[in-house]
Amino acid sequence: MSGLFKNAVNISHQVIAAVVEAGDIVVDATCGRGHDTIFLAQLVGEKGKVYAFDIQGIAIETTWELLQANKTLENVVLIKDNHSNLDSYIPQRIKACMFNLGYLPGGDHSIKTDKVNTLKALEKATKMLDNNGVITIVFYPGHSGGQEELNSMMVYLSELSQKDFEVSHVEFINQINDPPQITIVQKVLGGSK
Amino acid sequence: MSGLFKNAVNISHQVIAAVVEAGDIVVDATCGRGHDTIFLAQLVGEKGKVYAFDIQGIAIETTWELLQANKTLENVVLIKDNHSNLDSYIPQRIKACMFNLGYLPGGDHSIKTDKVNTLKALEKATKMLDNNGVITIVFYPGHSGGQEELNSMMVYLSELSQKDFEVSHVEFINQINDPPQITIVQKVLGGSK
Repeated sequence: MSGLFKNAVNISHQVIAAVVEAGDIVVDATCGRGHDTIFLAQLVGEKGKVYAFDIQGIAIETTWELLQANKTLENVVLIKDNHSNLDSYIPQRIKACMFNLGYLPGGDHSIKTDKVNTLKALEKATKMLDNNGVITIVFYPGHSGGQEELNSMMVYLSELSQKDFEVSHVEFINQINDPPQITIVQKVLGGSK
Repeated sequence: MSGLFKNAVNISHQVIAAVVEAGDIVVDATCGRGHDTIFLAQLVGEKGKVYAFDIQGIAIETTWELLQANKTLENVVLIKDNHSNLDSYIPQRIKACMFNLGYLPGGDHSIKTDKVNTLKALEKATKMLDNNGVITIVFYPGHSGGQEELNSMMVYLSELSQKDFEVSHVEFINQINDPPQITIVQKVLGGSK
């Protein structure tokens, strides 16, 4: 299976690649160093659009450079704002939303996603999700505050109606140091809108 | 993703299909009504071999009929014995082993897999696994004794060396009635034999 269940980030990419098509509207809720942003930009192509959020200027700048170098800038709207405001920027339903929580790799570890804003963003993304659309959330329970953030999200996610959403959670159970975990939310075809 | 993370049985089939090739030696540790057996028989083809175990005659008989009707009997060795003895029947390394625990659907619910024999079978399957090979285990925590069986396996699985095995566990967190869960064990390429 060439690493189908290798790690959380890997699973998020496989799930997103299986759902997102050219022309889709998608969200990178945490653009960070731009790795998910460019991945999404290549999937949706010129006729689609990626809305990518980060609260840190350095993240927006790094992502901009990565997109420019790969000629995918025009597929992306970069937004320096908290992802909890995502509904202010996106007028349509979305096909996918990727969250990669925690701090910016190589950045200031004291600046990180927090459970209050992440939960707001997640609630909004869930409401905006199109039929068959997916949300992926990569959690870092090994980071300071990461387990608490995961616990808060789990309360919300476990209460989503199973008529409307399939919610699965993957853990890597034989690794040391609390490795990342991933939750996948898929809007069920034919569920209520 | 057309249900990549729809349910535990569905995930087990996707993982197995991504790994098992024509000519492989594989195991159905719990043949039951034969659904996994025929799935494996079709994947390995005439040059491969499926060793399929069940303690109940009715399961062996039902599976035999299903295989015969689908002209895949010659790919399969049906064994009416406890899967804890699987090493007595299989001389080679195995590419995959599927466990679907609990009782026989439509059968006597008091006859079911038990944590002692399941653990023995799992330990043996783990040792016999070829590089890149996988074990899938579908658990039924909603059945009587199912949660206890799951807990016993988790202790063993969480202690497998991460140098040699990638072990992931998937739960469906927004469903009522304790839905099935799945664990996937993959032998790491290049790990110790």
